[in-house]
Amino acid sequence: MPIVNIQVTREGTTPDRDYVTAEEKAALIKGVSEVLRDVLNKPLESTFVVIEEVDTDNWGWGGLPALEYRRRVAAKKEAEGK
Amino acid sequence: MPIVNIQVTREGTTPDRDYVTAEEKAALIKGVSEVLRDVLNKPLESTFVVIEEVDTDNWGWGGLPALEYRRRVAAKKEAEGK
Amino acid sequence: MPIVNIQVTREGTTPDRDYVTAEEKAALIKGVSEVLRDVLNKPLESTFVVIEEVDTDNWGWGGLPALEYRRRVAAKKEAEGK
Amino acid sequence: MPIVNIQVTREGTTPDRDYVTAEEKAALIKGVSEVLRDVLNKPLESTFVVIEEVDTDNWGWGGLPALEYRRRVAAKKEAEGK
Amino acid sequence: MPIVNIQVTREGTTPDRDYVTAEEKAALIKGVSEVLRDVLNKPLESTFVVIEEVDTDNWGWGGLPALEYRRRVAAKKEAEGK
Amino acid sequence: MPIVNIQVTREGTTPDRDYVTAEEKAALIKGVSEVLRDVLNKPLESTFVVIEEVDTDNWGWGGLPALEYRRRVAAKKEAEGK
Repeated sequence: MPIVNIQVTREGTTPDRDYVTAEEKAALIKGVSEVLRDVLNKPLESTFVVIEEVDTDNWGWGGLPALEYRRRVAAKKEAEGK
Repeated sequence: MPIVNIQVTREGTTPDRDYVTAEEKAALIKGVSEVLRDVLNKPLESTFVVIEEVDTDNWGWGGLPALEYRRRVAAKKEAEGK
Repeated sequence: MPIVNIQVTREGTTPDRDYVTAEEKAALIKGVSEVLRDVLNKPLESTFVVIEEVDTDNWGWGGLPALEYRRRVAAKKEAEGK
Repeated sequence: MPIVNIQVTREGTTPDRDYVTAEEKAALIKGVSEVLRDVLNKPLESTFVVIEEVDTDNWGWGGLPALEYRRRVAAKKEAEGK
Repeated sequence: MPIVNIQVTREGTTPDRDYVTAEEKAALIKGVSEVLRDVLNKPLESTFVVIEEVDTDNWGWGGLPALEYRRRVAAKKEAEGK
Repeated sequence: MPIVNIQVTREGTTPDRDYVTAEEKAALIKGVSEVLRDVLNKPLESTFVVIEEVDTDNWGWGGLPALEYRRRVAAKKEAEGK
């Protein structure tokens, strides 16, 4: 009876969306439930999955809000590439 | 100083509502805080309760989004009943 | 299909024990599952409860480890009582 | 690679706001990431911070919704002060 | 930069073990990280996975400690089979 | 009344230890409680901090157990340095 909690930023996988679609959520649920079944023999019906979408303002990385951190990492990579 | 985290789907207890009411939340808070007091002698004022309402799309069971899983379980029960 | 996560310090309810007993854990599980059933009509078999016992060193309150905080609160109360 | 999860009530620090500002969130992220760096030598870029804002209805303290609990504590203090 | 938290009971997949092996944990980590990559295009190196093993006494289902609940479900199934 | 949950690997900050010391835990508790006070005006006594130490086997990064991931990143950096 595993419980899987997935936290992701509230963002889209394509530029025209800023959210995770219901299809993507269903695929996440299916995927991780199958991993639990395949690795630990947990029946699908005994696994609970909870997906939490977190606003990018509320996610920190590198001591910064996530989007700001990504911008700096991208800028640094570009600078190094020159 | 216990911390109780309650995750429930964002649904109503009656067909005309699709959310948990403030009264129900207050009853959950009262109920679980009293359980902690009665079982472990924790004073009410030392217990924190946090309720998280999770969209049904974001809740997985049986490798499926929760509503889809419930539909299949209900359909199966009905079929077995015949 | 609620999930209830209970975090408590690893302590006993009587001076001769420094842990939560299996009976107390069973009573917590029963109690909170019944609260979910009574308030939100959740069937007992759809509720998961996870109890986490946290070492007192790992629990902070008032900017201090929990035991140290309690000592100071008790000392302050005693001083005020005089 | 620490993960820090911060749960706070969705409230403003000034009477005219009922939410945590993006600047305050950035300051929380910076502050706790620096604590992890200073105390445990964790590089800033290895720390994830997630901030969860919880509606006051969904937060319990003293067996009551948080705002109701605060009201009673304030009333009690006032009564004692007389 | 997803965070995946997996809670499972501390049990073995074979009768001679009462714990999850390091190989099984590695397979869980690999599996769920790949699901996040395949569904949401999250690079493997941006996903954190934390596995929590929970003693069976500390896990509740059906209002009972998990092992007791399983025993009753198994007994009921057997009785129905007759 | 914030709740801060800190998950770190069970490791020492010096080679001779493989755990977080009580002093370090106390410094974490003090530090993050002060951040909440300084940024959001939360009184120290209203903040709960819970520290979870996670075995390195139970922590995944880059699709691998954390120690293995670190070894590969270190090896790659060394190779690039040549």
